[in-house]
Amino acid sequence: MNKTKLLHEGKAKKVFLTDSNDLVIQEFKDDATAFNNKKKGTISNKGVVNNAVSCKLFTYLSENGISTHFVEKLSDRDMLCKYLEIIMVEVVVRNVAAGSLVRRYGFEEGTKLENPIIELYLKDDDLDDPLMNDSHAVALGLATYEELDILKEQAAKINTLMKSFFAERKLNLVDFKLEFGRHKGEILLGDEISPDTCRFWDLDTGEKMDKDRFRFDLGGVEDAYSEVEKRVLDLK
Amino acid sequence: MNKTKLLHEGKAKKVFLTDSNDLVIQEFKDDATAFNNKKKGTISNKGVVNNAVSCKLFTYLSENGISTHFVEKLSDRDMLCKYLEIIMVEVVVRNVAAGSLVRRYGFEEGTKLENPIIELYLKDDDLDDPLMNDSHAVALGLATYEELDILKEQAAKINTLMKSFFAERKLNLVDFKLEFGRHKGEILLGDEISPDTCRFWDLDTGEKMDKDRFRFDLGGVEDAYSEVEKRVLDLK
Ligand SMILES: Nc1ncnc2c1ncn2[C@@H]1O[C@H](COP(=O)(O)OP(=O)(O)O)[C@@H](O)[C@H]1O
Ligand SMILES: Nc1ncnc2c1ncn2[C@@H]1O[C@H](COP(=O)(O)OP(=O)(O)O)[C@@H](O)[C@H]1O
Ligand SMILES: [Mg+2]
Ligand SMILES: [Mg+2]
Repeated sequence: MNKTKLLHEGKAKKVFLTDSNDLVIQEFKDDATAFNNKKKGTISNKGVVNNAVSCKLFTYLSENGISTHFVEKLSDRDMLCKYLEIIMVEVVVRNVAAGSLVRRYGFEEGTKLENPIIELYLKDDDLDDPLMNDSHAVALGLATYEELDILKEQAAKINTLMKSFFAERKLNLVDFKLEFGRHKGEILLGDEISPDTCRFWDLDTGEKMDKDRFRFDLGGVEDAYSEVEKRVLDLK
Repeated sequence: MNKTKLLHEGKAKKVFLTDSNDLVIQEFKDDATAFNNKKKGTISNKGVVNNAVSCKLFTYLSENGISTHFVEKLSDRDMLCKYLEIIMVEVVVRNVAAGSLVRRYGFEEGTKLENPIIELYLKDDDLDDPLMNDSHAVALGLATYEELDILKEQAAKINTLMKSFFAERKLNLVDFKLEFGRHKGEILLGDEISPDTCRFWDLDTGEKMDKDRFRFDLGGVEDAYSEVEKRVLDLK
């Protein structure tokens, strides 16, 4: 499969059209951004890690009944995917209070949530990805109520699967962000699942093993990413 | 019924306990605040208008199957109500884009929404009343999913009733905020419904007839409040 035309260059990936109308290639970059582009940098080898971790997770989720855009891993940085008409809604699932949940609602960081919190954000950098609810998403014409129910239902299932996947790898899945899209009348999970889009805390030490190390200059960013990659890939 | 003890002094009202355990008196003040207390002032006679308008609306809603805390109008500024354990969730219903909907999501002011938008906000001045969804409200222990369904269902019914009430009075009901509470195992509509808590635009001229005149120093604040009172009360 050959890259024909650059469809989109985003903050962390390039997306290319291919010889096939139905397929695109995601190319994972080392560029890192945080706080909606206010902080920029590079995390060396991040693209390789995130591609490997994402491919492994999409495979695991597919094997467990989740429909994803993943087709195959083409190379270190390239992932072949079904082309999606992306739904401009970021779906965030939270198991433990961290980040904006702490800032916005006064939860203490680390509070275990009895039921997962599922949030919808408008995917729009210019508006700073604002939180929204179903009625906003529908009024903005992003999706129907039925589609949003599918997104939330899939997100909850994915959470259950991912929590146990990471627990086996001694990682506490604190929260993560998903994107979905439409493909031939079906809704598929898209984008990536990686230390860029998840918060992982070491199950024993509580150490942060994700992009928060970059966001808050905690040091050891590359090491954390490759440790996650190791734990994800080594266990069969 | 006598006021015994001041239970709560808020931004716009005082709430008093009474001789009866089940009843409280809301006393409507002329104090006005906006932008979460950053702007403060007085709107002369506002308390009298808001009490009169609220009493009329609670009566109208009760006659149309909505359970409210309203018992009777005691005087110009005093309303007798059933005591509520207030649910710390502000329910906002929107028919037309204005205010934070414009700022947050880029809607153009005045856009008619095909389906009403219903929003939940955490009632917490220290946190600046942040927007939330059902799963936040449940995680914060504010209400159960079943109770939130009742709040949203009631809010939608109230919206339908209020839209037609105000249309007959040549006012376009742009949006409004509701509070609910628990009373003897039932959920009742509480607080007030007034130009402080609704946006009204004159149906013919589009002129703003509500607290936005105070928020944005548009002038004619008192006149707008008494014109709303007149339209609400004069029509039988
Ligand atoms: N299968 C797919 N088909 C089309 N677009 C996709 C697919 N998967 C993800 N995308 C989109 O491609 C882009 C990936 O690049 P990224 O750097 O993450 O962009 P962004 O800066 O928007 O987050 C995202 O906009 C994402 O929504
Ligand atoms: N029936 C009721 N029983 C008890 N409290 C009520 C009732 N109706 C409204 N309240 C509460 O009384 C207060 C009314 O005063 P207000 O000035 O609006 O306060 P705030 O500054 O919190 O908005 C609000 O906190 C409201 O939630
Ligand atoms: Mg992205
Ligand atoms: Mg109030």
